[in-house]
Amino acid sequence: MANPDKYVYRFGRFNTDGNRKMKHLLGGKGANLAEMSKIGIPVPPGFTISTEACRSTIKNSMKWPEELFGQVMEGVKHIETEMGLKLGDDKNPLLISVRSGAAVSMPGMMDTILNLGINDKVVEAVIKKTGNERFAYDSYRRFIDMFGDVVMGVGHDYFEEAIGKLKKEVGVEDDIELNASHLRELTDRYKAIYRKVTGHMFPDDPVEQLKFAINAVFKSWNSARAIKYRQISNIHGLIGTAVNVQAMVFGNMGEKSGTGVCFTRNPSTGESKLYGEFLLDAQGEDVVAGIRTPSHIAELQSRNPAIYKELVGYTRKLEAHYKNMQDIEFTIQDGSLFILQTRNGKRTGAAAVKVAVDLVNEGVLTKNEAIRDLVDPGHIEQLLHPQFKEDALNGSKVLGTGLPASPGAAVGKVVFDSKKAEEAAKEGETVILVRIETSPEDVGGMSSAEGILTSRGGMTSHAAVVARGWGKPCVAGCSDIVINYKTKSFTNGEITVKEGDWISLNGNTGKVILGKKELSKPEFSKEYRVFMDWVSDIEVMKVRTNAETPEDAELARSYGAKGIGLARTEHMFFKPGRVNFMRKMIIANTKEERVVALNNLLPFQKQDFIEIFEAMEGLPVTIRLLDPPLHEFLPQEKDEIEKVASELGVTTDILENKVNQLKEFNPMLGHRGCRLGITYPEITEMQTKAIIEAALELVKEGKTVLPEIMIPLVGSVEEFEHQRALVDKTAREILAEHGEKLDYKIGTMIEIPRAAILADQIAEKADFFSFGTNDLTQLTYGFSRDDAVKFLPTYIERGILKQDPFQVLDEEGVGQFVQAGTRLGRMVNENLKVGICGEHGGDPESINFAYNTGLDYVSCSPFRVPVAHLASAQAVLRKDREENTDEDEKVNSLLA
Amino acid sequence: MANPDKYVYRFGRFNTDGNRKMKHLLGGKGANLAEMSKIGIPVPPGFTISTEACRSTIKNSMKWPEELFGQVMEGVKHIETEMGLKLGDDKNPLLISVRSGAAVSMPGMMDTILNLGINDKVVEAVIKKTGNERFAYDSYRRFIDMFGDVVMGVGHDYFEEAIGKLKKEVGVEDDIELNASHLRELTDRYKAIYRKVTGHMFPDDPVEQLKFAINAVFKSWNSARAIKYRQISNIHGLIGTAVNVQAMVFGNMGEKSGTGVCFTRNPSTGESKLYGEFLLDAQGEDVVAGIRTPSHIAELQSRNPAIYKELVGYTRKLEAHYKNMQDIEFTIQDGSLFILQTRNGKRTGAAAVKVAVDLVNEGVLTKNEAIRDLVDPGHIEQLLHPQFKEDALNGSKVLGTGLPASPGAAVGKVVFDSKKAEEAAKEGETVILVRIETSPEDVGGMSSAEGILTSRGGMTSHAAVVARGWGKPCVAGCSDIVINYKTKSFTNGEITVKEGDWISLNGNTGKVILGKKELSKPEFSKEYRVFMDWVSDIEVMKVRTNAETPEDAELARSYGAKGIGLARTEHMFFKPGRVNFMRKMIIANTKEERVVALNNLLPFQKQDFIEIFEAMEGLPVTIRLLDPPLHEFLPQEKDEIEKVASELGVTTDILENKVNQLKEFNPMLGHRGCRLGITYPEITEMQTKAIIEAALELVKEGKTVLPEIMIPLVGSVEEFEHQRALVDKTAREILAEHGEKLDYKIGTMIEIPRAAILADQIAEKADFFSFGTNDLTQLTYGFSRDDAVKFLPTYIERGILKQDPFQVLDEEGVGQFVQAGTRLGRMVNENLKVGICGEHGGDPESINFAYNTGLDYVSCSPFRVPVAHLASAQAVLRKDREENTDEDEKVNSLLA
Repeated sequence: MANPDKYVYRFGRFNTDGNRKMKHLLGGKGANLAEMSKIGIPVPPGFTISTEACRSTIKNSMKWPEELFGQVMEGVKHIETEMGLKLGDDKNPLLISVRSGAAVSMPGMMDTILNLGINDKVVEAVIKKTGNERFAYDSYRRFIDMFGDVVMGVGHDYFEEAIGKLKKEVGVEDDIELNASHLRELTDRYKAIYRKVTGHMFPDDPVEQLKFAINAVFKSWNSARAIKYRQISNIHGLIGTAVNVQAMVFGNMGEKSGTGVCFTRNPSTGESKLYGEFLLDAQGEDVVAGIRTPSHIAELQSRNPAIYKELVGYTRKLEAHYKNMQDIEFTIQDGSLFILQTRNGKRTGAAAVKVAVDLVNEGVLTKNEAIRDLVDPGHIEQLLHPQFKEDALNGSKVLGTGLPASPGAAVGKVVFDSKKAEEAAKEGETVILVRIETSPEDVGGMSSAEGILTSRGGMTSHAAVVARGWGKPCVAGCSDIVINYKTKSFTNGEITVKEGDWISLNGNTGKVILGKKELSKPEFSKEYRVFMDWVSDIEVMKVRTNAETPEDAELARSYGAKGIGLARTEHMFFKPGRVNFMRKMIIANTKEERVVALNNLLPFQKQDFIEIFEAMEGLPVTIRLLDPPLHEFLPQEKDEIEKVASELGVTTDILENKVNQLKEFNPMLGHRGCRLGITYPEITEMQTKAIIEAALELVKEGKTVLPEIMIPLVGSVEEFEHQRALVDKTAREILAEHGEKLDYKIGTMIEIPRAAILADQIAEKADFFSFGTNDLTQLTYGFSRDDAVKFLPTYIERGILKQDPFQVLDEEGVGQFVQAGTRLGRMVNENLKVGICGEHGGDPESINFAYNTGLDYVSCSPFRVPVAHLASAQAVLRKDREENTDEDEKVNSLLA
Repeated sequence: MANPDKYVYRFGRFNTDGNRKMKHLLGGKGANLAEMSKIGIPVPPGFTISTEACRSTIKNSMKWPEELFGQVMEGVKHIETEMGLKLGDDKNPLLISVRSGAAVSMPGMMDTILNLGINDKVVEAVIKKTGNERFAYDSYRRFIDMFGDVVMGVGHDYFEEAIGKLKKEVGVEDDIELNASHLRELTDRYKAIYRKVTGHMFPDDPVEQLKFAINAVFKSWNSARAIKYRQISNIHGLIGTAVNVQAMVFGNMGEKSGTGVCFTRNPSTGESKLYGEFLLDAQGEDVVAGIRTPSHIAELQSRNPAIYKELVGYTRKLEAHYKNMQDIEFTIQDGSLFILQTRNGKRTGAAAVKVAVDLVNEGVLTKNEAIRDLVDPGHIEQLLHPQFKEDALNGSKVLGTGLPASPGAAVGKVVFDSKKAEEAAKEGETVILVRIETSPEDVGGMSSAEGILTSRGGMTSHAAVVARGWGKPCVAGCSDIVINYKTKSFTNGEITVKEGDWISLNGNTGKVILGKKELSKPEFSKEYRVFMDWVSDIEVMKVRTNAETPEDAELARSYGAKGIGLARTEHMFFKPGRVNFMRKMIIANTKEERVVALNNLLPFQKQDFIEIFEAMEGLPVTIRLLDPPLHEFLPQEKDEIEKVASELGVTTDILENKVNQLKEFNPMLGHRGCRLGITYPEITEMQTKAIIEAALELVKEGKTVLPEIMIPLVGSVEEFEHQRALVDKTAREILAEHGEKLDYKIGTMIEIPRAAILADQIAEKADFFSFGTNDLTQLTYGFSRDDAVKFLPTYIERGILKQDPFQVLDEEGVGQFVQAGTRLGRMVNENLKVGICGEHGGDPESINFAYNTGLDYVSCSPFRVPVAHLASAQAVLRKDREENTDEDEKVNSLLA
C-alpha cells in the first residue's frame, strides 16, 4: 500500500517513483512515463500528481490536500536538478508542460498547457540562451493563448482573431511567416486580450502559473465534454485525472528541431512499418490539432537518418515491453530525440488482427495474450462491416479524396451539425457528419453518424482518432471540398452538395462519392483466419446462430456456428405463396377450417425444415413455434384488405372484421407465443408434424438431425406442460407410424419474468432453456423496444441509463433473472441445457456475463458469430487471468 | 394418526367412529353425520368410506384397497344391527343410500343413489312389510333410474321418456297419479331400457349393486362437471370424495311421511326463523331437483305440530354445536323424524351479517369468531352490490314474478344458452342467463351472466343454490313465463322477449322486468354497522382508498378508509375546461410553451388537491404524478381532431402530426410514468407546485396535511433520484418562499419487475413503496390486461391458470416480487412504509397475502373499503388461530 499522503511521483534518468502498474493512481500517461524512464527511454524528466489528489481536491471544493503544494515544489526541484535549469530563472530558465492523464486514454478531451514558466523576464533569458527571439516569443504567445483558454476560459478564438488580424496587417498568410517582432507584438496583444476578458493582469509568477494550471487540469475532469466522452465510451469507475508536469523540450527551435507522432505499425492495415507524421520547427499541438498538414514519418529517414534509426530502436523496445503496438509522441530538440509519450495505439479491426498475429509470430506475446488483449470483439465486428460492392463505385462521381482516416464504407445523408446528426439518428435516418474539423464538442454527432468527413486535419486529427476508436468510417482532411455552414452545403467547385443529399464515404481509400452506393459483405484476410483458428481452440461456451433460412445457416456454419439457437418459424409463413394459407387459417371460424389451411402450410414448413436441418447436419437446431400475434399476418390498410380479401375469396367485411377483432392494445403482451398454441392446439400440432417429418426424411438418408423444439413465451409450468404434451403426443404418433426413433428435445424460451423466478418448476419438465433477453428486457424494465426511442436517448444523456439495455444486457436487473433462471433450472434438472438467444447473444459484454453465469451457449446473428467467438474466448481467458493475478495487476487490467 | 388401513367409519346410535374434525378424511357430510350421531341427533345409521379410499382406488385404476371390501361388509352389518334389517332379506330388507361427500360442499355435483338393495325378491318383502305396493314399486323404479343413470350412464332421459309415455297411455298428468300396477309396469320397462342400453341384465345382488354404486361415486370425483365446478369455485387440494352409505328412510310412505330441507335462519335476510320447504309423500330428490314445487316449512307446523317442534329443537342444537346457521335435510318416515344431513348454510351478504350479529348477541359465539368465520368478504361485497334506483321500477313492465332466489339487482341482455353467455361475456356484454332450469352443465354460463332467471324450480333448486353462493341475483321458478329454446325467446303470453333484448331482475322481490333499469348504490342495515364496528376494532393493517375526487375521498372516509393510497392526477386533467390546456402542453414545441400551458393547469390542479386534502384532513394522501402516455389526452378520430384543432387554434395538420408522432406500439410499455417527468421535468415541477401550494393553504388554516408524492413506473434508482431531486428542489423553494414547514414524503410505485428486485437501491432514497400490482402483474406475466381477454378464459377453462391474476394476486409469481421488494426495501430502510394499491388491494385473498407479507396498508376503491377491512381483520384472526391450533383443526379450518 502506497503512502496515503504521497501525491507526487517523480520520473527521469535518476529518480523514478512509479511504474506501469500504477495506472489507477498515475493515469495511463504518468504510469507510462515512469515505466519508460525505468527502461531507459529518453523521456523529459518530470513528476505526476496522482488521481487521488484530483479526487480529493474536487471533493474539497478545489482545496488541495495539505501535503500537495510542498510535494509539487519538491517535484519542480527534481526537474530542475535533472535538466540543470531553474523555473523562473533569468539565466537558465526551465519551462514545463502540464498535462492531464487519466487511467483510460481520452484523446482531445483533457486540456494541456505548454511553455509554463515563461514571463517577460524569462523570455529574455530564453532569447539569450537560444539566440532565437522568434522561438522565444512564439513560445510566450502560445503559452498565453493556452493558459488564457484553458485556465481562464478566454476562448481560443480571441487569440486566433488577433493573429489573423496581425497577419493581414503585415501581409503574410502562414503563421510561420511571422517574424520575431511580429510575435513580440502578438504577445503584447494577447496579454491585452487576457486583461480585457479576465479583468486581471496575466500572472508573471511561474509558481502561480503552475498552481493555476494544475487546478485547470483537475477541473477539466468534470467538464461537460469530458463527462460526455466518458458516457459515450462507457468509461466508468475512475476517480479523476492525474496531472503530468514535465520539462519542456522544444520542437520549434529551428530546422534541426521538430515534433511528431507515430504508430509502431500501421493502425489501418497493421503493416509492420512506422506510421505517423512529423513537422519540423513545430510543437506537438500543430500536429495533433490538424492545423498544419504534416509530412509522413517515412520522410524523416531522409531528413534525419540518425534520428530515424534511433526512433525505430525505441519503438521496438516499447512494443516488446508493452506487448502491444504503440502510439508514440516525440520531439526532436536541436538534434536530440525525446519520447514524450507512448500508449497502446488505437487501430482498425484489420490492423488489430494483423498486429496480433504478427506479434505472436515475432515471439513478442503468446496466442492467448494476443486473443485476450490485442483484438477487441469490436475489431472483429468492424471486419464484418459492409464495404462497397465491387462494381458499386464504377462510374461514380468522386467529389474529392481525403485521408483514409478510418476504414470501411458508409452511406448517409449529409448533415453539417452534430446536434442535427443526433436528432436525425433518433428519427432513424442514416447520416454522414460533414465538418471542417471536429472537436470534442462533436462527439455526440459523430457517435450518431454512419461516417465522418472533414475538410481539414490529418490522420491523427480529432476526427480520425475518435472514428478509428469507434470503428466508424472516416475521411479526413479532404481539402478538395469547401464547406459552408451557413448555406448548409459543400462544394468541390463543380458540384454543390446540400444538407440531406446522399453521399458515400470510402474510409479505405479516402474517396468521397456522390449518391448512395451499394454496400456488400466484407472479405477476410489470411491473418483473420489464423486468428479465428486460435480463438476456436480456446472457446468453451458454444456459439450458435439465429437463422431461419438455409443460406443464413450455411453462412453461420462457415463462420463456425455450432448449431442454430433460434429459428423463428413465423418468418417462413410470411413468404409469398404461403401467407394466404396463413391468413385463411386466421380467418377460419372453426377448428376444421383451420386444420385445412394448416395442412396446406405443412409441406412448405416441412421443406424449410429439411433444408435447415441439412445445412446444420449433425448440429442442434432450435426451432421456435409460432410466436407473433396473428394480426401481424393480416393487411392493415383499406386497399390491402380489399386486395387480400379477394385473393382469399371472402368479402372485405369479413376480413376487415377479423382485422379489427385481432387488434391489440399492447401486442407485445398480447395473444402470442404459447398462448396461440394453447388456444389453437392445431397450430402446434402442424408445426410439430412438419419438424418431425422433416427430420425423419433426413434420418432415413442416414443423416443426424438434432431438433430442439422451443415453446415460446412461457410464463407458467402449466403452459409448458400443455404444449409439451401436445408436441410429444404428435411426435410419438408420427414416429410410431414410421417405425423410427428420433432424439428430439423440448424446451422453452425464458423471456417472461415469471418464468425466470419459477424456473425450477419449468425445468422439471423441460430439456432446455433459452433466455430471450429481448423480451425479458422489455418486461423487466417495462420498456417497449419499439417505443423506447422516445425516452432512451434522454435517459442516456442524463446518465439515468449507462447504456441501451437492448444492446448491452442489464446485468443488475435482467441479469438477475438470467442468473436466477439458470440456478433454479439446474437445481432441479442438472442436464438442462441453457443458452441465450436475444440480441445480447452477440454483444461482447453480455457474452462475458453469459460465460460467468455458466450458460452452455450463446446464439446470435450469423455475422456476429465470429464476434461472439472472440468474446467467448476472452471471457475464458479473462476469468483465468483474474483467478491468477495479484490485486495491482487486476486494477491495471480493468483499465486496459 | 388414524390406522392407515382403516377406510370405513361407522355412525349411528351405538357405534360412531368419526367426528367433525375429520372432514378431510370423511368429507363434510360424513364428518357431520358422525358428529350428529355423537350429540344425539336422529341420523339414520350408516358408515363413511374415506376420501383416502377414493384416492387410492382412482390411483390404482379403480382397484379397491385390499381391506376395503371386508370393511364395507362390516359396515353393512353395523347398519343391519342398528336398524334390525338385513340387506337383500326377503322379510325385513334393508335399503340403503349411497352418497358422495367431499370435504367441501359441492351442491348438485356429486351423484347419489337411493333405495339400493331392492330387487324382485326384496320389493315383495317391502310390499309385505309396508302394505304399500305403490311405494315399493316407486322406490324400485327410482332405483333403476338412478342406478342406470349414475352407475351405467344410461341417460335419465330414457327413463323420463318411458314415464311420459306411460302417463299418456294411462291418461294421467302427474307422476303421483300413477298407481302401483303402473309403477310395476314402469319397473319392467325401466329394466328393459337398462338391458337394451347396457347390454346387461339389471344386477339383482344388493352387494354387487353396492360395489357398483361406490365405484360410481369414486368416479364422479373426476367427472368433467365436478372438475369444472372445482375450477370455478376455486376448490383445490382435496384428495377425493368420501362415500356415505346409510340406511334409507322413506318420505314417500304416504301422507304421514315426507321430506324437506331447511335453513335454521332465513338465508336471504338472516331472520331467525326456520326457512325451507317440504313435500309430503316424497323423497328428497323431488325437492332438490326442483321438479315438484314444495310447501314452505312454516306449513309443517300446521300439518304436523309435533314433528315441527322436534325439528326446531334439533335446529337449535345444531346451530349451537356448529356455531353457525345450518342447512338441514330431513325425512319423516311414517311419523318419525330423521335428520339426513346438516351443513353450514349458504347465505346472502345481508343474511351473513345479520346471522353473525344475532348469534353473537345470542351468546352462541364470540365477536372474533363471528368476524373470522361467519361473514365472507364476498358477503360484504354483495351488500355493496347495486340495487335498483328507487324510482327506476315505477311504471315498469313486469314480465312475471318468480322466487327471490338470490338477492340484488341485475340488468342484461337475454341469452338462453350457457355457451352463448360465456361468449357474450368474453365480448364484454352483460347478459342474463334464462333457462327452464339449470344443471351443473350450466355453471360456466351462470358464472358469466349478471343474473339468472329460471322458469322452474324452487329456492333450493340448482340455480338458486349456486347463484346465492356466488352472490349473483337470481329469480327462480318464474312460471309466469314460457321459454322456447328453439325460437330463442320467452313469453308471458302477452309480451315476447327475444335473445338480445334487455331485461332487469330483482333478486329481492323475484320480479322480472322488461328493459334496462337504472341501478343505484346499496344501503346498509343496523347489523352491518354493528358488525363493521367490531371489524374496525380488530384491524391492524390500514385500509386506504384509491380516490381522486373529494366525493370519493369523503365516501371512502365514511366507510373507514385511513387515507388515500392512490390519487391518479391524470383523471383531473381530463375534465372539461382543463383538457385543452393539457393538449396545448402536449403540442408545444418548446419548453417555454409547455410551461405556459402547465401554468394554466396549475390553479385547477391546486384546487383539486385542496379539496382532497380537506376531505382527508389529518390522514395521508398519496398523489401519483402524471402516469399515462400523453396520446391518451389527444383525440384519435378525424372529426374530433378537426374540432380540437380549431379549439386549440392550430391547424388540423399540426394536431394530426402530433397524434401520429405520439402513437405507440405498446403504450403500456411506452413513454409514460416517470419517463414523462424525466423528459419533461416541467410537468413534475408544476404538479409538485400544485401539491405543496395546496397543502400550504390548509396548513395556514391550522389543518394537518400529509402529502405523499408518488413517482410512477420507476425501474431504476437513477429514475427515482432524478425525480426526487426535482420534487425536493421545487418543494423547498416554495416552502422557503412561504417560510413554512411541511411534512411531505416522496416514494414510488413498485410496478416494474426490475424495481422489485432492486428495491434495496430504491429504498435507500424513498420514503414509501406502493405495489402497483396491476402493472406488476402485466409485466410479470407479460399479459396485457386489455388484450388478455382473448386467452385468459381458455387458460382458466383448461386449468392453465387457477384464477384471473388481475383479480386475485398471483402469489407464487407476482407475490415473489411483492415479498422481495418489501424485504429488500426494509433491509436498508426500516422506516419504509409499504402498501399495495392495485385492484388486488380490494381482493380478500390478496389482502390476506398482503398481511402475511407484512405490508402497512392496502388501498382499494371506496366501495371495497369495507370488504378490505373485513379481509384484513380475518387475516389477523386466521393467523392468530393458525398459531394456536392443532394440526387436525388446521386441516379442518382450511376446508371450512
